[in-house]
Amino acid sequence: MSYDLILRGTAVLPDGPVENAWIGITADKIAAIGTGDAPSAAAVHDCGEDLIFPGIIDGQTHACSYGGLPGIRSTTRSAIAGGVTTIVDMPYDNPAPLNDIARLTDKVTAIQQHAHAHVALYGTILPGQSPEEVAPLIDGGVVAFKISTFESSPTRFPRIASDQIFGIFNALAETPLPLGVHNEDQEIVRAYIAAAKAAGHNGIEAHSASRPPAAELAATAQFLELGASAGAHAHIVHLTTARGFQLVDNYLADGFRATGELCVHYLWFDPDRDGQELGARMKVNPPIRPGQIDALWEEILSGRVAFVSSDHSSWPIDNKFTDSIFDAGAGVPGLETLLPAFYTAADERGLDAASLTAEQLCERPAKFFGLWPQKGAIRIGADADLAVVSLTPQTWNAQTAHDELRWSPFDGRRFNITVSRTYLSGQLAFDGKAVLNQPGDGRYVRRGPSHWFE
Amino acid sequence: MSYDLILRGTAVLPDGPVENAWIGITADKIAAIGTGDAPSAAAVHDCGEDLIFPGIIDGQTHACSYGGLPGIRSTTRSAIAGGVTTIVDMPYDNPAPLNDIARLTDKVTAIQQHAHAHVALYGTILPGQSPEEVAPLIDGGVVAFKISTFESSPTRFPRIASDQIFGIFNALAETPLPLGVHNEDQEIVRAYIAAAKAAGHNGIEAHSASRPPAAELAATAQFLELGASAGAHAHIVHLTTARGFQLVDNYLADGFRATGELCVHYLWFDPDRDGQELGARMKVNPPIRPGQIDALWEEILSGRVAFVSSDHSSWPIDNKFTDSIFDAGAGVPGLETLLPAFYTAADERGLDAASLTAEQLCERPAKFFGLWPQKGAIRIGADADLAVVSLTPQTWNAQTAHDELRWSPFDGRRFNITVSRTYLSGQLAFDGKAVLNQPGDGRYVRRGPSHWFE
Amino acid sequence: MSYDLILRGTAVLPDGPVENAWIGITADKIAAIGTGDAPSAAAVHDCGEDLIFPGIIDGQTHACSYGGLPGIRSTTRSAIAGGVTTIVDMPYDNPAPLNDIARLTDKVTAIQQHAHAHVALYGTILPGQSPEEVAPLIDGGVVAFKISTFESSPTRFPRIASDQIFGIFNALAETPLPLGVHNEDQEIVRAYIAAAKAAGHNGIEAHSASRPPAAELAATAQFLELGASAGAHAHIVHLTTARGFQLVDNYLADGFRATGELCVHYLWFDPDRDGQELGARMKVNPPIRPGQIDALWEEILSGRVAFVSSDHSSWPIDNKFTDSIFDAGAGVPGLETLLPAFYTAADERGLDAASLTAEQLCERPAKFFGLWPQKGAIRIGADADLAVVSLTPQTWNAQTAHDELRWSPFDGRRFNITVSRTYLSGQLAFDGKAVLNQPGDGRYVRRGPSHWFE
Amino acid sequence: MSYDLILRGTAVLPDGPVENAWIGITADKIAAIGTGDAPSAAAVHDCGEDLIFPGIIDGQTHACSYGGLPGIRSTTRSAIAGGVTTIVDMPYDNPAPLNDIARLTDKVTAIQQHAHAHVALYGTILPGQSPEEVAPLIDGGVVAFKISTFESSPTRFPRIASDQIFGIFNALAETPLPLGVHNEDQEIVRAYIAAAKAAGHNGIEAHSASRPPAAELAATAQFLELGASAGAHAHIVHLTTARGFQLVDNYLADGFRATGELCVHYLWFDPDRDGQELGARMKVNPPIRPGQIDALWEEILSGRVAFVSSDHSSWPIDNKFTDSIFDAGAGVPGLETLLPAFYTAADERGLDAASLTAEQLCERPAKFFGLWPQKGAIRIGADADLAVVSLTPQTWNAQTAHDELRWSPFDGRRFNITVSRTYLSGQLAFDGKAVLNQPGDGRYVRRGPSHWFE
Repeated sequence: MSYDLILRGTAVLPDGPVENAWIGITADKIAAIGTGDAPSAAAVHDCGEDLIFPGIIDGQTHACSYGGLPGIRSTTRSAIAGGVTTIVDMPYDNPAPLNDIARLTDKVTAIQQHAHAHVALYGTILPGQSPEEVAPLIDGGVVAFKISTFESSPTRFPRIASDQIFGIFNALAETPLPLGVHNEDQEIVRAYIAAAKAAGHNGIEAHSASRPPAAELAATAQFLELGASAGAHAHIVHLTTARGFQLVDNYLADGFRATGELCVHYLWFDPDRDGQELGARMKVNPPIRPGQIDALWEEILSGRVAFVSSDHSSWPIDNKFTDSIFDAGAGVPGLETLLPAFYTAADERGLDAASLTAEQLCERPAKFFGLWPQKGAIRIGADADLAVVSLTPQTWNAQTAHDELRWSPFDGRRFNITVSRTYLSGQLAFDGKAVLNQPGDGRYVRRGPSHWFE
Repeated sequence: MSYDLILRGTAVLPDGPVENAWIGITADKIAAIGTGDAPSAAAVHDCGEDLIFPGIIDGQTHACSYGGLPGIRSTTRSAIAGGVTTIVDMPYDNPAPLNDIARLTDKVTAIQQHAHAHVALYGTILPGQSPEEVAPLIDGGVVAFKISTFESSPTRFPRIASDQIFGIFNALAETPLPLGVHNEDQEIVRAYIAAAKAAGHNGIEAHSASRPPAAELAATAQFLELGASAGAHAHIVHLTTARGFQLVDNYLADGFRATGELCVHYLWFDPDRDGQELGARMKVNPPIRPGQIDALWEEILSGRVAFVSSDHSSWPIDNKFTDSIFDAGAGVPGLETLLPAFYTAADERGLDAASLTAEQLCERPAKFFGLWPQKGAIRIGADADLAVVSLTPQTWNAQTAHDELRWSPFDGRRFNITVSRTYLSGQLAFDGKAVLNQPGDGRYVRRGPSHWFE
Repeated sequence: MSYDLILRGTAVLPDGPVENAWIGITADKIAAIGTGDAPSAAAVHDCGEDLIFPGIIDGQTHACSYGGLPGIRSTTRSAIAGGVTTIVDMPYDNPAPLNDIARLTDKVTAIQQHAHAHVALYGTILPGQSPEEVAPLIDGGVVAFKISTFESSPTRFPRIASDQIFGIFNALAETPLPLGVHNEDQEIVRAYIAAAKAAGHNGIEAHSASRPPAAELAATAQFLELGASAGAHAHIVHLTTARGFQLVDNYLADGFRATGELCVHYLWFDPDRDGQELGARMKVNPPIRPGQIDALWEEILSGRVAFVSSDHSSWPIDNKFTDSIFDAGAGVPGLETLLPAFYTAADERGLDAASLTAEQLCERPAKFFGLWPQKGAIRIGADADLAVVSLTPQTWNAQTAHDELRWSPFDGRRFNITVSRTYLSGQLAFDGKAVLNQPGDGRYVRRGPSHWFE
Repeated sequence: MSYDLILRGTAVLPDGPVENAWIGITADKIAAIGTGDAPSAAAVHDCGEDLIFPGIIDGQTHACSYGGLPGIRSTTRSAIAGGVTTIVDMPYDNPAPLNDIARLTDKVTAIQQHAHAHVALYGTILPGQSPEEVAPLIDGGVVAFKISTFESSPTRFPRIASDQIFGIFNALAETPLPLGVHNEDQEIVRAYIAAAKAAGHNGIEAHSASRPPAAELAATAQFLELGASAGAHAHIVHLTTARGFQLVDNYLADGFRATGELCVHYLWFDPDRDGQELGARMKVNPPIRPGQIDALWEEILSGRVAFVSSDHSSWPIDNKFTDSIFDAGAGVPGLETLLPAFYTAADERGLDAASLTAEQLCERPAKFFGLWPQKGAIRIGADADLAVVSLTPQTWNAQTAHDELRWSPFDGRRFNITVSRTYLSGQLAFDGKAVLNQPGDGRYVRRGPSHWFE
């Protein structure tokens, strides 16, 4: 027996890191895992003491919000450079969202043409559509659906009324697919923004206050109850406070399917500390709130966070340079920083950063989106998607990042690790310097049979 | 010592019924309670073995929805004939609701002019009003506030947007006053009604389905969370399923102030059984749902129901004779049947009907609305408002009821008791046949210092 | 109508104190309660602003441990002087306990001969007796049973083995009678005492450590589980730590009948603070432990304490003057101080002392022992047993106490109230100075139908 | 690279079975795991479609109760034939238990001389010993301690008094080692047996009743509370009812370290169904109780069972042929049937038998006794102890079993699987017919650093 490739290093296996390990790859699969001397192989890549993670899965990416479907190219290139081998892309593409089979076909075609990394897809339903239209999209392989209770764009990111939300939940009730929500109450947010503007507030410090926790929590509570009424899986794509996770937990305790997700920037930034420096560069919705970081880590450690994602958006920086914070675009680039940022934040708290990373950025999103067991862990028979990091500290430099956006809220921040290699489908796709693989090497990934809830 | 009046009978005291009891009344107060021989008195009314209850408090009356403020007259006359000595009147008066101090003044004047029974008042806030306008109404003595998430009338009963709900909650957070809600999601209800109409459904069987539990529960969940965010007391004025009370209970468990109320018709009627006979005469909102009665009694017995009320509306029957159920008015008369209907329903289930009646129709609403300890129990120093019932079964005849509406969903139903006397402020106001007291004998009752939550 | 006696003052009714109240007594019953002017009466006693409580019920008295059945005389005399109108006497009489119908007959005869206060009785079962022998004692009116897991005396206060405990529980399972336990593990206590003696420890500071919480809790846990296995009501007659009440609460949550009691000295003394001063005068079993007072008050306020009692023992002081703490008798006199001590401790913490006293020393023990509603509250038809206190502070002087023991752990302590009168069966029995009634005026009180558990 | 041995088959990995897998073994460790073609090896054993489990760990064996330390030989031979590669041996050796370092040394020597399988050891403490004597045994590598609350033998299996239990718990409080208990209340059991004998009962149907659940639960409750008081890990080595696991769960909920174990015979037999056939051959203590099997499976599925064991005893059948059930020895042989019996019982209920077996018989006991991650799962770097089973049904024949006892309660029972091979330390030790390895090939296994509780 001879493998196509043997990769050597410290493998972060499901039970924990194993030093002096090797991973045998045949074609695009992990065929064997061992320790000590390795069998023969066509090629051997020795990563020394670097940590070999399963390929990172970003459960929340907006690849096409700005540049449309071709945005897949730069986004997935950035992903690969960040050790992210699979993105779960949101449906709010420019100029129109993924809401029917034609658009799904177009997007799959674009993936085949542009993708450096694997891509799984969220679908959505627009106002006026029948909830039954989820069926062909499910057949087409989407992994989840998403809607918003707040309108960011009437055509691309519209508010979905509660009757339609309930309709979609009913259509999904017999399936394992979650319906995710951008959870902000439109009436409260619009009223508070109007009040802030009327009062002449226009800096980043006004942003969090203009979208108070009540706006987020009221939308969350309503959405969870609609999901419970239908018996479907309700998922909150970002919660910014511990109260949100308590709400989700109450639904679990009552026997319903409910989950909540966290994005890595909520674990890193605090407007009271970082607002003056970052301004609109830390504007996301729902906003990062003051003084939440410790409580959110508690939620992770108590197991109440489904997984952690990037919520990556490829906005050009011009989108942020506005006179008023309320005119600035919301969202930040984050794919390339997801892995080092999460690992570093855990490490700085004295936690077992390797295991937490494998759990929150690999295993949990894989199970959540039906990608398990092909993805999400270094295990026999799994896809040979791998992220390798060296324990070399670095200072993040947005100018040299591979998304070519040349800005990031993490610019100048210190990370404890550096992504040294990324393997996609058994091929070296990033060598620590350059993205080596080609557009189209990434594949469209369909939802499989794994379930989050039994 | 000689009392103005000694009333003899079986007194339903806080600890249970005491036979051969007497109640000594001086002016409008209960001055003494005893058993056996009674002291001298200017008058002695011997009720034999009849049960003497504290005057019933109806926590949810709509006296002025149809006839405007003069509606107080016939409504409170009906109340007195039903043993109800205090109504807590809703703010949705015709043509305009109680939303400022001028309207409060008008309504108090109307009470002084028309009321046969005592009247406590809910206030409301209209779209466009500042939440701060609750303050003068609180000073003016209102016992609670109410809004709706569903618009029944743009001027009289409008939908309040969530930003304004949150504003009112913030304004009430430091007070013990609850904000009540008519809890139906407008988008779901409107969509479902449109669908029912489009499908040609127009009978009573279509009504409950047109306002599904999800509509009620989603509005409830959102409202409870807004109250929790503000730290105020959120009250759901009618819940029709056990799930609603579970939701409320989750908020209590999380440390927030939340309560839910039940109306007596939800304990009596079932559309599957009674719909064909009653048609629009059992149309209320949220609708009475099939198969809920047993579960709702469980909620009462487990202590999760704040209190039971009538939700009395004085609609003429013409309001119900429409081609489509969707054109019929919602609401039913119920003040005069509240006491016998609740007592009978408990009695028929083998429960301690006397104690449950005193608890759910007297003590709990008194404590809830800040009327305790002057009202709500037969105790030394309390107001001499009393309801006397004989254990004489009767068949309800809407033609002879004192509301002069000549219809009721209870028409022809069997009750196990008959209201034999009502005393208001120490005076015999109803003798089992006629209402004896005069318009204006009822008083405006302000909120006192008693608290529902510690 | 004219009463035998009208008593005027501030009456502590179930809902709270009512000023300027009067209580009309006919023969030995409360016939009427009022406020303001009172009806005529053969006698009127005006207590001014003094608080009139229901007669105190001490749920745990040892009247006959020292002097045998005649000990009832001095013990109940002391009770009356302390406002205690009913004692629930423990079965461990000298020289032999109340374990059969002959001894019950003797004790009832002694009550009729000696008792100044009413007396309800615990029974017990001795080693070798059949558990079925509880039946004639239940017929004879005992209110509860008690055993010990620790042997204080082989004949009078023996350890009962677990098979016999289980047998007694089985015999009581179909009844509402609780089986109480003196809850200390004999093996642990004996081993720890032996170790303390071997180490030369002999002061009061060694006492608490010689009977560690584990000894108390292990016996408690075993006893509760035996009661649960049989489906009977298990009662712990004294718990000294919050953990004990948590254990009891776990049984309630699992659906079993379990309760725990507290004695007033656990709320007053702390060996770290008071040990040097009091020495053996604060020796009780299980011991008073350091630093527990605050936690035990939390238990009372959370409703997890069944009731508070005195655990009064009439030991002469000689019993305490021993070289070693391990030779000193355990137990303290406490009937006469129970009411002022509990009230004062509550008052000093800023609590509603009057209501807490009526609840913990009157209503709860009455309900617990099946004495409700004849005893436990000032209510129409109840027995005219009353305790009157003035809000006059006093310094306790054991020399002038009516138990004639001339010692007390409370000697020299400050109380915020003074017992000014006690009424037994409608008769003035104590006037603040002297006990006025006669031996034999107290009655034997049998268990009635009231239940602690539904 | 070439392995010493490649084993092929369906590997039951931590995430579930992987077909067509291979396991590469170098010396006594698992060096690699793969699927598909395997690297070269000195030997290849192809197990076809057989399931390859981690070596079974029996957490409760009595190897030396009958034949003394040499009993290790036949017991571990039987273990190997049953796929059990590690036994955790109880301390109650004949004639004297493992209670000091000398006996530990002797037993380790006996293991080195006699053991076919690996052996981890429980220690114990005898009456009169200081609890501090646990320390050298912990240094010597014992994995846990055990005592009994019931005396089976005064020298070998004595009752430990509660003061000594508490002492041992205190000595273990700072360590991760559990103190296990044979949980039966001696007083209840002795009294019930005496009563049964007096009543002339002597058949197997009298056995369960003679040791009622109360005996087991009271001992359990007392023991758990002693452990909680000391802050140590309390472990109940066999619980026979769901109530027992509820008790344990209450301690977890209160923040203490507590666990409960189940033995496979409690999942297989019911005295009402099997008693007449099996008689004393199903006598174990605590007894198998009627009607518990479904409830006990619920406990396993809810995660409240620490692990499942055999409680194997090597009694000759003569020990069971007594006139009275009370004279028959308690305990049954079970090592060789543990794996097929547990797997079959799970399989027959429609459960995922392979995963449940790997969890309950491998991973959980490994973690519990500090043997993880060297043992308990098929993972890189783990010990090459493996159990291979074919999906070939068999009827158990005690005559051909390798324990040479020639009896078993499972005799004639149908199993869905057959143990086809056992590997110990990388060597084929059983080939489905004969035990191939030698006495002394098994090793003494010391407790490692893995923790059951964090």
